[in-house]
Amino acid sequence: MLTMDWQPCRGNALPLYRQIYLYIQNKIETGQWPSGTRLLPQRQLAGQLKVNRSTLAIALDELTADGYIKSRRGSGMTVSSPAWAKLASASRSWNQRLTADAYLSNQPMIQKINTLEFAPDMIRLGTGEIAPELLPQTELQQLIAETAPKIHNFGYQEPQGLPALRQQISRHLKTRGIDAAPGSILIVSGALQALQLICFGLLAPKDAMFIERPSYLLSLQLFRSLQLRFSTLPMEADGLSLTSLAEQHKRHRHALLYTVPTFHNPTGALMPLNKRQALLHFCQENQLPIVEDDVYRDLWLDQEPPPPLKAMDANGLVLYVNSLSKTIGPGLRIGWVVGPEPIIQRLADLKMQHDYGSSILSQWVAAEWLRQGLEEAHLTRLRQELRQRRLLVGQCLENHFSQLADWRLPSGGFYIWLKLRTPVSLPQLFKAACQKHVLLNPGTIYDQQSSQYLRLSYAYAKPEELCRGLKILAGLLERRP
Amino acid sequence: MLTMDWQPCRGNALPLYRQIYLYIQNKIETGQWPSGTRLLPQRQLAGQLKVNRSTLAIALDELTADGYIKSRRGSGMTVSSPAWAKLASASRSWNQRLTADAYLSNQPMIQKINTLEFAPDMIRLGTGEIAPELLPQTELQQLIAETAPKIHNFGYQEPQGLPALRQQISRHLKTRGIDAAPGSILIVSGALQALQLICFGLLAPKDAMFIERPSYLLSLQLFRSLQLRFSTLPMEADGLSLTSLAEQHKRHRHALLYTVPTFHNPTGALMPLNKRQALLHFCQENQLPIVEDDVYRDLWLDQEPPPPLKAMDANGLVLYVNSLSKTIGPGLRIGWVVGPEPIIQRLADLKMQHDYGSSILSQWVAAEWLRQGLEEAHLTRLRQELRQRRLLVGQCLENHFSQLADWRLPSGGFYIWLKLRTPVSLPQLFKAACQKHVLLNPGTIYDQQSSQYLRLSYAYAKPEELCRGLKILAGLLERRP
Repeated sequence: MLTMDWQPCRGNALPLYRQIYLYIQNKIETGQWPSGTRLLPQRQLAGQLKVNRSTLAIALDELTADGYIKSRRGSGMTVSSPAWAKLASASRSWNQRLTADAYLSNQPMIQKINTLEFAPDMIRLGTGEIAPELLPQTELQQLIAETAPKIHNFGYQEPQGLPALRQQISRHLKTRGIDAAPGSILIVSGALQALQLICFGLLAPKDAMFIERPSYLLSLQLFRSLQLRFSTLPMEADGLSLTSLAEQHKRHRHALLYTVPTFHNPTGALMPLNKRQALLHFCQENQLPIVEDDVYRDLWLDQEPPPPLKAMDANGLVLYVNSLSKTIGPGLRIGWVVGPEPIIQRLADLKMQHDYGSSILSQWVAAEWLRQGLEEAHLTRLRQELRQRRLLVGQCLENHFSQLADWRLPSGGFYIWLKLRTPVSLPQLFKAACQKHVLLNPGTIYDQQSSQYLRLSYAYAKPEELCRGLKILAGLLERRP
Repeated sequence: MLTMDWQPCRGNALPLYRQIYLYIQNKIETGQWPSGTRLLPQRQLAGQLKVNRSTLAIALDELTADGYIKSRRGSGMTVSSPAWAKLASASRSWNQRLTADAYLSNQPMIQKINTLEFAPDMIRLGTGEIAPELLPQTELQQLIAETAPKIHNFGYQEPQGLPALRQQISRHLKTRGIDAAPGSILIVSGALQALQLICFGLLAPKDAMFIERPSYLLSLQLFRSLQLRFSTLPMEADGLSLTSLAEQHKRHRHALLYTVPTFHNPTGALMPLNKRQALLHFCQENQLPIVEDDVYRDLWLDQEPPPPLKAMDANGLVLYVNSLSKTIGPGLRIGWVVGPEPIIQRLADLKMQHDYGSSILSQWVAAEWLRQGLEEAHLTRLRQELRQRRLLVGQCLENHFSQLADWRLPSGGFYIWLKLRTPVSLPQLFKAACQKHVLLNPGTIYDQQSSQYLRLSYAYAKPEELCRGLKILAGLLERRP
C-alpha cells in the first residue's frame, strides 16, 4: 500500500484539489508509484490528506481524465501512467518479482504489527522490547559524546569486529561464567543477524533443526525461506521437553538445536540447572550442536538464573548468542556470537559478504559502555522497574482474567504466555482489539497450534496503558459468545 | 587457521613454555579450538608467540604427551582433546557443517586479502576504500558529539529507516537530479546490503541477471551462492557493451541488469550521457529493470559526471543504490536504495527480517552530516587529494610500467585497471608480492578471464607507499622469464 506522507497546504495559492493533482501526478511520473499499484480507498485517502472527499474527488477525476489513474468497479483505483501504457509497463517486471521471489514476505499479521507499532495511540500489549523511557538515554547520550574523540578510524574494520569491543565482551562474559578469548567472538548487528548467519553459513538446505514450540524463530519468515526443516520440542514449565528431544533424535539425525533456556520467548520459562546439565549431556552424547540464545539473561527479576549452557560446555558444542538490545537498546544493533574459532571465522567471513561489518560508532559506544561498567547500575534500575510492572500486570490479570485465561508470571524477562480458556478466532480478536487501539501478539505467530494463546509483554506499554489495554481485551473476550 | 593474539610474558613467575602450555590447554579445554583443528607450522607459531622454537617445542611436546595435540608426518599438528576422543568429537558436527554449507566461503584469495589487509607494513595497492587519513575524522568526531543529545530513542526504528535521515537523503538526491520522496527511500547498512536485499528479495533462484565484465559483484561469493545465473556484458571504454546486451537479451529473457555507469569498479569507466540514454531506452523497450550502483559519483575529479540513470527514469525502472562509504567513511555503514514504493517496502520488510534496521547512531550522524551540508567542503578537499594521487600514480606508471603494461587514468573514482603486456601467473605474482609486503588485487577476482589484469587503487596506500609498491611490482614483473 502506498504511503501518503504529505498534506496539501491551505495557505497555498493553488487550490487544494490542484495541489493533490500535482502531488499524485509527480509520484506517478517519477515512477515512485509504478503502474498497477493500487491506491487507498477514497475515504481513507481523504482522511490521510485531511481534505473533504469532494475535494479529493475533483483531483482524482482530473487524474483519471488525464490517464494517470484508472478505476474499476470492485478493484478500486490503480495507477496507470500514459508512459506505461506505451511501454507495456517496463517496471511491471519489478511487480512480477514481488510475487516470484525466492524469499517469503513476513507473515501478513507480522507486517501489520510492524506497521501498526508506529501508529500513534496504539497500546502495544505484546511488543518484545524495552520501552524507550526505560532505556538509559541520558547515559548513552553522554557516553556517545565522550566516546566520539576516541573513534580514530572510520574505515572498514576487522571481519570479527572492533578488537576493543571484543575484549570488553570477553571480560563481560567471564562475569557470566563463560571463558572466551576475543578471537572466539564475532560482533553482529543484533542476535537476529547471528541466527541468520548461523543458518545461512552452517546449515545446508533441507537440514533439520530442533526448535522449541512455541518459538520466536517461527515468527521469522526468513527462516522458513531457507527451506530448513524444523522439528519442534514442546515447551514445559521448565523448558524444552527432553523426552521429545530424545525420541525425535533417535528417529532422525538433526543438524542443530536452537534454544532459549533463560526466560524463553514467548513463554517466559526458565530451565533449571539440572535440566541444563541433562540437555548438555544428551547433546554431547549425540553430537548435536546447540545454539543458545541468551538475550534475556540479564533481566532476571527474582534471582540470578543458572549459568548459561555455554559456561558448562567444555567441548565447543555450544554457539552462544547475546546482544545489548534487551538491556541498553536495540537501536545500537550490537550483538555477539561466541564459539569455536574456526566456526566464528567462518561466520565472520559470511558477515563480510553480507554487510562488511557493523557500525563502528555502535561498536565503540558498546565497548565504552562495557568498559566503564555502566551496565550494572542500569540493570539494577531496569529490574526494579520491570518488577513493578510485572506486579501491576499480575494484579490486572487477577482482576480481569481470572475467569478468562490462565498464566504464569515469569521470574525474568518480560513475557507472559496467556492461555485463553475459551477458543476464539485470533484474527477476529486481533482486528477487534486494533479497532480499540490495542495491538496484540497472537500466539499463532510463534506456533500455528497456539491459537488459544497471546504473548503479553510488560516491558513496552506504559503502566497505565497496560492496565487499560488489558481491561479492553478482557471486555472483548467477555463479549464473545 | 587459528589466531594467536597473545604472547607469553617474560616477567611472569611461570617459565615461558609453561605459559604456552596453559594457554593452548585452555583454548582446547574450553572448546575454542575444537578437535581436528590444524595448528600453524612451528616456525610461524614461534614467530607469532615471539619465542624460540626450542621453547615452543617443549610446550608442544608436553601437550602431545598429555593428549591435547597429535602430530602426523606431512599434515602438521592438529588439536585432539582427550574429551573429544571420548565423545567421538561432538563438535566435529560443526566442522562438518563448514564444508557441507549452503553458502560458499569467500574465494580463498579474497579471504587472504581480507586478512592481510590488517597485517602491519603491507602496502595495499588495490584496496577499494578511502584511506582513514583522508576521511573527515575531526569533523565526524565533533559531529557525533554534537548529535548525541538529539538521539532521543534507542529503540527499534521504522522499517524504512530514520525519517530524519530519509528526508535529508531526499533533499540530497535532488541536488543529484533525482526526485524521490522519503517514502521511496530505504536505509541500508551500505550498498552491499542493498544488493543482497535486491537479489534475495526480488530474484528467484536460477534467475538470469546481466552484470558487467569485469564486475565488483563477481568478487562476492554471496551472489554465486544464490544460484543466480549471470550473463556478462563486456566493458568498453565508455561502459558496458550495448551490442552485447541487445544480442543476449534477444536470446534469453533476463530478470535485471546491474550496472555501475559512473567510475566503474574495477575499470574506472564512465558512461557518457548519450549512452546512458540509449541504455535506458533499451531497458524501457525491453522491460528490463536496472539496478544502478552509484557509489563513486561524488568522487569526480575532472568534471561532474552525466546525471544518474535514475534522474532520467520516468517509469520506476531503476533501483538506485548509493552510500556514504566512499566519501565520509565505510565505518558508518549507511547506504540507501531508491525506487518504486512497493518495491522499497518489500525490501524494507526483508531488511527487518535480516537485522531489524541499521544502527540508530549511524543514522542520526548521517542525517546531521547531510543536514549541516558538511559534504561539499569535505568532497572538495578529498577530490583535490585524489587528483594529486592520480597524478603521482600516473607518473609512477609512466616511469616503471611503460614497457610492462597498459592503462587509462580514470576521470573519477580511484581505480586503475592495469593490463599486463606479458601473461603471468597471478597467484604466483600475488604470493611474490606478498613476500615483499605488497598486497595486490588480481583481476581474476572480478572476472575469471581477466588473468592479465590488476586492479590498482590510489585511494588507500600513502603516496610514498604507492610509489614504492609500484616499483616493487615492476621489479617482480621484469624478473619473470
